[in-house]
Amino acid sequence: MFRTQQKISNGANSSKTKVESCKFLDSMDKRGRIQLTPIGKAKNTAKKPALTGWKNLITEIVLGKRYAKGLDGIEDYSHVIIVYWMRQEKECHLKHHPQGRRDVPYGGIFACRCPQRPNRIAISTVKLVSRKGRRLLVKGLDILNGTPILDIKPYWPQYDRVAKAKTPAWVNRLIF
Amino acid sequence: MFRTQQKISNGANSSKTKVESCKFLDSMDKRGRIQLTPIGKAKNTAKKPALTGWKNLITEIVLGKRYAKGLDGIEDYSHVIIVYWMRQEKECHLKHHPQGRRDVPYGGIFACRCPQRPNRIAISTVKLVSRKGRRLLVKGLDILNGTPILDIKPYWPQYDRVAKAKTPAWVNRLIF
Repeated sequence: MFRTQQKISNGANSSKTKVESCKFLDSMDKRGRIQLTPIGKAKNTAKKPALTGWKNLITEIVLGKRYAKGLDGIEDYSHVIIVYWMRQEKECHLKHHPQGRRDVPYGGIFACRCPQRPNRIAISTVKLVSRKGRRLLVKGLDILNGTPILDIKPYWPQYDRVAKAKTPAWVNRLIF
Repeated sequence: MFRTQQKISNGANSSKTKVESCKFLDSMDKRGRIQLTPIGKAKNTAKKPALTGWKNLITEIVLGKRYAKGLDGIEDYSHVIIVYWMRQEKECHLKHHPQGRRDVPYGGIFACRCPQRPNRIAISTVKLVSRKGRRLLVKGLDILNGTPILDIKPYWPQYDRVAKAKTPAWVNRLIF
């Protein structure tokens, strides 16, 4: 994402275009740990993890009031990427069988998308249904009620769409 | 990402498949703030933000030794998503003109991919060149030397590829 920065930071346009600033919600301490503060939370009817049943689920993402303006213009996108913290996850795995399935190879956590990660950050690409003030409705988000939201990014095909991506065959055997 | 969890946490297979556990690097405090610890860092020749010049840049992602096994199997993918913390970013914007351009509409930070975000988390999808132990080589990552890495996820078309995503026309005028 650094590529989008130069004109703001160094370019001649920097002081000339309009900006509404805010305060960072994150920082790094002397030991190199990073502290984040959620911008909002998820509201839906999902109370327990499940493999299926997400496709048509509507979730409301409610941001803190001071971040409402940060959503201006998001209505023009069909899809957004929700970045969140999987606080309900109680296990951390370095290696495992994805989805706990013996018919899927034993492999590293960074070679799958399972939630049992050292840093429980998740990214999910979903359909944007509507935006009203500080509230977004999204469809198909596999998130539990109350989950803290860290960031929202619009889906940009230039960044996010890979026409031909190779994955191991076992990925296609998993439940989506 | 919750959809992948049920069998591990609740399913009959849970105690029967092999798992190598690790310790979480993240936690939430009483005030709801989330603390993360990087799993590694980026090494490359990029010292300053820039709009162009990333396409052919090779970056080495070096994980902490204890996380090397977490990469097992990643060699089978063509693309990975690098999740990192943009520590060099010094400005936080609620609204601005993306890339500091007057010919692009003034809009919210959650409606663009610029780095001036309240939580400086970035996600970049890149080509995986090779993996050797705890080191990954990736191509085209727009990241500065020394940037802390929070997570690595394989690119799964089932999650990450949207065939037809609508974006506002101005996105196509930006520099990629």
